[in-house]
Amino acid sequence: MAKNGAILYGFWQSSCSWRVRAALRFKNIPYEERGVDIVKTKQQGTEQYRAINPAQKVPALVIDNETLVESMAIVQYLEESRPQPSLMPGTLMERVQMRQICETIVSGIQPLQNIGIKRSFSTLEEYLKFSKYWTERGLLTLEELLRKSAGKCCVGDQITIADLCLVPQTYNAVSRFTPDLSKYPTVSKVYKALLNEKVFQETHPEYVKTKL
Amino acid sequence: MAKNGAILYGFWQSSCSWRVRAALRFKNIPYEERGVDIVKTKQQGTEQYRAINPAQKVPALVIDNETLVESMAIVQYLEESRPQPSLMPGTLMERVQMRQICETIVSGIQPLQNIGIKRSFSTLEEYLKFSKYWTERGLLTLEELLRKSAGKCCVGDQITIADLCLVPQTYNAVSRFTPDLSKYPTVSKVYKALLNEKVFQETHPEYVKTKL
Repeated sequence: MAKNGAILYGFWQSSCSWRVRAALRFKNIPYEERGVDIVKTKQQGTEQYRAINPAQKVPALVIDNETLVESMAIVQYLEESRPQPSLMPGTLMERVQMRQICETIVSGIQPLQNIGIKRSFSTLEEYLKFSKYWTERGLLTLEELLRKSAGKCCVGDQITIADLCLVPQTYNAVSRFTPDLSKYPTVSKVYKALLNEKVFQETHPEYVKTKL
Repeated sequence: MAKNGAILYGFWQSSCSWRVRAALRFKNIPYEERGVDIVKTKQQGTEQYRAINPAQKVPALVIDNETLVESMAIVQYLEESRPQPSLMPGTLMERVQMRQICETIVSGIQPLQNIGIKRSFSTLEEYLKFSKYWTERGLLTLEELLRKSAGKCCVGDQITIADLCLVPQTYNAVSRFTPDLSKYPTVSKVYKALLNEKVFQETHPEYVKTKL
């Protein structure tokens, strides 16, 4: 498959890798996932991986004879190059709602709890305190946004890029900092419903882990 | 102007406010800027501003009878609702290059030097050390990306959303952490050329400050 299909360089636990994995699955794009262990063996720092992504981060996607980096740029490339089935809502106002949710996660939460920043803290406790604080602030913002836009999904009833951001980030929150989502009832409802969708079940970190 | 035009709630020094201000100027959209002091008087925390943006962040833009938040979502809304003059390059590959640059800034640099996170550090020195480290790592990534895509601008010779991210972020770097850009020659060259463009001169923080 790798010869003609796409190759995803990702890490099973990485929320940004999950965004891309779910987009590939949603659009039925054949791909092979190659694990890059960014935690134990720190393979992102090897010369071999730096040749793929000089930024030493996951994910990277080799597709259409190009190597793409940065998860949201990749997802949008997939949406533009393979528009059906679509991950974008139909109206201008729904698209701005979708992007507000994405940006709250992509800029407001993910970078401030990313495992990569751990090295900048003196102790694990300090890193966890920082990550938890900013995750929970972001969840409050998401709750406000979703209250206005959500149906079964983040924006109405259709799976969009916002859901590809919400599910991995909420999974991180629940498994690492905030097991109880009761302060964020809309986020919680949408997250739980989306976990039943095949696209998230078949790209879930716990599922991917068993296949490594 | 406010009655029919747009209202930008921003802060003169905020890089995210500058992104939106430059998009409005580039597209010749009439707007009035209302300053929200997020540093000294912390107006973002007032009830009055929370009614505009519950996330207590700048910018927010009132336009077309809607209040929009999150700078990149706003810029993309302006691009979709007022496509000309365009802030998007013409080809799929240029658009992915543009988005990789945007995401490196929007997720990889801005959140990790944002004044808002200062409260999470015990001392100013710790905050500045953290911000400087992640800014300079991001600049290295930008240098790699721009080496492949830049002409006079981040992607070729046309001003795109990537430039709306690059100029404010590099201005922050230069004025706060990294006065010497010699390690990032392509970033430096593009940044300096863009500072001569009217769209950045007329939306520059130092210019906006004089008008407050």
